Amino acid sequence: MAKELTSRGENYSQWYNDLVIKADLAENSAVRGCMVIKPYGYAIWEKIQAELDRMFKETGHVNAYFPLFIPKSFLSKEAEHVEGFAKECAVVTHYRLKQNEDGTGLIVDPDAKLDEELIVRPTSETIIWSTYKNWIQSYRDLPLLINQWANVVRWEMRTRLFLRTTEFLWQEGHTAHATENEAIEEAYKILEIYATFAENFMAVPVLKGLKSVNERFAGAIETLCIEALMQDGKALQAGTSHFLGQNFAKAFDVTFMDKTNKLDYVWATSWGVSTRLMGALIMTHSDDHGLVLPPKLAPFQVVIVPIYKNEEQLTAINAKVYELTSKLKTLGISVKYDNDDNKKPGWKFAEYELKGVPIRLAMGTRDLENKTIEVARRDTLTKETVSIEGIDTYIQQLLNDIQDNIFRKAYDYRTSVTREVNSYDEFKEEIEKGGFLLCHWDGTPETEELIKDETKATIRLIPMDGEKTPGICMVTGKPSAQRVVFARAY
Amino acid sequence: MAKELTSRGENYSQWYNDLVIKADLAENSAVRGCMVIKPYGYAIWEKIQAELDRMFKETGHVNAYFPLFIPKSFLSKEAEHVEGFAKECAVVTHYRLKQNEDGTGLIVDPDAKLDEELIVRPTSETIIWSTYKNWIQSYRDLPLLINQWANVVRWEMRTRLFLRTTEFLWQEGHTAHATENEAIEEAYKILEIYATFAENFMAVPVLKGLKSVNERFAGAIETLCIEALMQDGKALQAGTSHFLGQNFAKAFDVTFMDKTNKLDYVWATSWGVSTRLMGALIMTHSDDHGLVLPPKLAPFQVVIVPIYKNEEQLTAINAKVYELTSKLKTLGISVKYDNDDNKKPGWKFAEYELKGVPIRLAMGTRDLENKTIEVARRDTLTKETVSIEGIDTYIQQLLNDIQDNIFRKAYDYRTSVTREVNSYDEFKEEIEKGGFLLCHWDGTPETEELIKDETKATIRLIPMDGEKTPGICMVTGKPSAQRVVFARAY
Repeated sequence: MAKELTSRGENYSQWYNDLVIKADLAENSAVRGCMVIKPYGYAIWEKIQAELDRMFKETGHVNAYFPLFIPKSFLSKEAEHVEGFAKECAVVTHYRLKQNEDGTGLIVDPDAKLDEELIVRPTSETIIWSTYKNWIQSYRDLPLLINQWANVVRWEMRTRLFLRTTEFLWQEGHTAHATENEAIEEAYKILEIYATFAENFMAVPVLKGLKSVNERFAGAIETLCIEALMQDGKALQAGTSHFLGQNFAKAFDVTFMDKTNKLDYVWATSWGVSTRLMGALIMTHSDDHGLVLPPKLAPFQVVIVPIYKNEEQLTAINAKVYELTSKLKTLGISVKYDNDDNKKPGWKFAEYELKGVPIRLAMGTRDLENKTIEVARRDTLTKETVSIEGIDTYIQQLLNDIQDNIFRKAYDYRTSVTREVNSYDEFKEEIEKGGFLLCHWDGTPETEELIKDETKATIRLIPMDGEKTPGICMVTGKPSAQRVVFARAY
Repeated sequence: MAKELTSRGENYSQWYNDLVIKADLAENSAVRGCMVIKPYGYAIWEKIQAELDRMFKETGHVNAYFPLFIPKSFLSKEAEHVEGFAKECAVVTHYRLKQNEDGTGLIVDPDAKLDEELIVRPTSETIIWSTYKNWIQSYRDLPLLINQWANVVRWEMRTRLFLRTTEFLWQEGHTAHATENEAIEEAYKILEIYATFAENFMAVPVLKGLKSVNERFAGAIETLCIEALMQDGKALQAGTSHFLGQNFAKAFDVTFMDKTNKLDYVWATSWGVSTRLMGALIMTHSDDHGLVLPPKLAPFQVVIVPIYKNEEQLTAINAKVYELTSKLKTLGISVKYDNDDNKKPGWKFAEYELKGVPIRLAMGTRDLENKTIEVARRDTLTKETVSIEGIDTYIQQLLNDIQDNIFRKAYDYRTSVTREVNSYDEFKEEIEKGGFLLCHWDGTPETEELIKDETKATIRLIPMDGEKTPGICMVTGKPSAQRVVFARAY
């Protein structure tokens, strides 16, 4: 196996770390908890960004940019918000360095202490709502449907590449509305965009629902989320959309004149997905051979490798391949032709398998004679020899098939490990096996806390869709309105 | 005039500030020196990004992402570099806040002091070269042609929207090469990209050249730059490309095995343009009526305003306009149709003039009858009534004309205020009038320093192209190899 990837069975966690490093997606940096996103990983992130950005714009959102720094006092204005973020803030206290007079090097200049410390944004509700105050006077100024692509910092004690890093990249939407209903609708609309993106582009099936009070965003009235399931049976929160009520409007005194000339506080939502999606993408599809990428997000969808013994053969293959790549590009398919003479075909095969390129084509001299080409699928690891005639549309269809297949595979896996559990004893046994457990719960934070303490499982979400049959809580025997989804999570 | 824009003649500096605010491009934030880039301004920046990104990728560059934070010790490793940046660094010293025990609010938790302070990146050479050390062993690993889009922080004492802000957005390319020549070629290649982008997309004519030692990037062997001229006669540095020699490779011990199995230090370049380009764009073309945008970077190129008295008329106009917009979109032209009933046409005209929309179309009932439409150019402020027949290709051509016209206008202005000056007395007089002064200089930092102290003018660049006639320095009378370009600058 290329570059010695640990197998999933052996050690899932190590497999993930190996894969991220060896497929050149990201690596740890010299700064504790901060990652370097390498070009191949960043190319995937760019595709994620481009699609989401298009979806946001199609639904009337625009991009803007707000400051990296937040004055300390702003953070305190919303009580729950500060409670949620104060413990993990990077704090800027000075604005200058100087050479130490004793010649020992660079020190912080004590004369350059800030009057008020600045926080590196962990999220931007406070700085944005302090700005919105000046932008909103009347209902005519509403809604504001603004998104920003940015870096944020949360000082995490235990970090893992993409899944939990001190600095990460994300988009954060911050909208302002004249009515409660409109804001709630916006929060749900965004959740649909996230779910559609996850399923149709990442090929990651997700559950949609509401967070329990314990898992809610600090400062939100309601947090909606999409939740994915990784191959080790652990859940991963892939995106959240918050209905913030009037909390931030009140904290920053943002009022508006409504149509009836009445002054009211503005209604808000915020929502975000981050480079964490990269973790979900990697862990949902990949195997012991390396990355498996959905065609819609692969930096290149097809790689072509020539098999030749001498210069003359390569020249003949090159000519045929250039013809083919130009046809594929016409169909909007991204192709890389790797005719680097310094690497053997076997090395290339392993490399592109590791990097998850959806389709690998190999062309040798016999293929030239027979007018064929070898087509290898990354998802099934199967190979077939196909006529070069009509190969472009064949590849196009195959990319769709791969996209569908990896979604279905992930969907079937999730279905196979999602089950109803009716007693707490059964729960304790089942949770060890991973997967989503559908259980009755009495709706109290205390019971959720108890379950978490005893089993490390949390309520991933309260499902939005599907039937809602009442029952009794598996722990306390108290009434439950509907089953909720438990799992251990990343 | 819409929203009372100060005129350029009255107060150029105030005009600029007014325009940035009133055209909804950006505003100052609650954080000293940091700006909020508003949606309309950000939409222009997105267009700048998209074009540059395409040009970088077409020339073999890829994007990646490196950490926001730089350990303090990294900054010290390149002596000139630290000298250049230490005095304007935002320093993170703590990673947690806590509630003060006396109940007075949030304080920095003294128990959460970092062992080593982190600097918010002012530029990323140090963190990137510390990373490249692990990526480069052999000539086969070279070149690395990497760019990143990021925010950076330089603690500026006097800030101005877009032109000089504490935090700004930019791209920074950092490339690694096996030979000196290849690195120098890369630096020049990027300068060409910057110049092409400035002239062909921003419609801003630029001079290309080398910086003098005084103006060189801290840590560079040679700094290449493009220099633009604003309407007030002041120069604006619009982009720089640095040949870094082996300075950073030596500082971070980045060596490679060359083709002859000899170990050598890696050769480097770095290059960047920032949101400062927005300032150049605004100041080059705009007038007392507001922004003038080049069609290639305008968030929308055409705005259509209906002129009507009643619902029925509007309905008829709507139908005709929908036909037209769909034709324009087919040609790749971006159009906004503003039939908002709450605003009068006059208000809309002023608003889109202020926002620099290249072409404004107005359609009334008489136009419907006559099969005409009113076409107003933002650059010349001229209006004409044109047949609706073939209007789509007419608009397409007009957008090209506008793009060309504003470039030519800026070019002619620059030519008119660029002149040779032969004595220091003449120089002192001429510099007050603004523009580029071509003068002989003895090549010493001392003479440049003296001129700067006495006249506030600096050497903007040593021209790369054109004839290089020797002469004698206007200040010292010592020999000069060629004329250099002096100006007062932003």
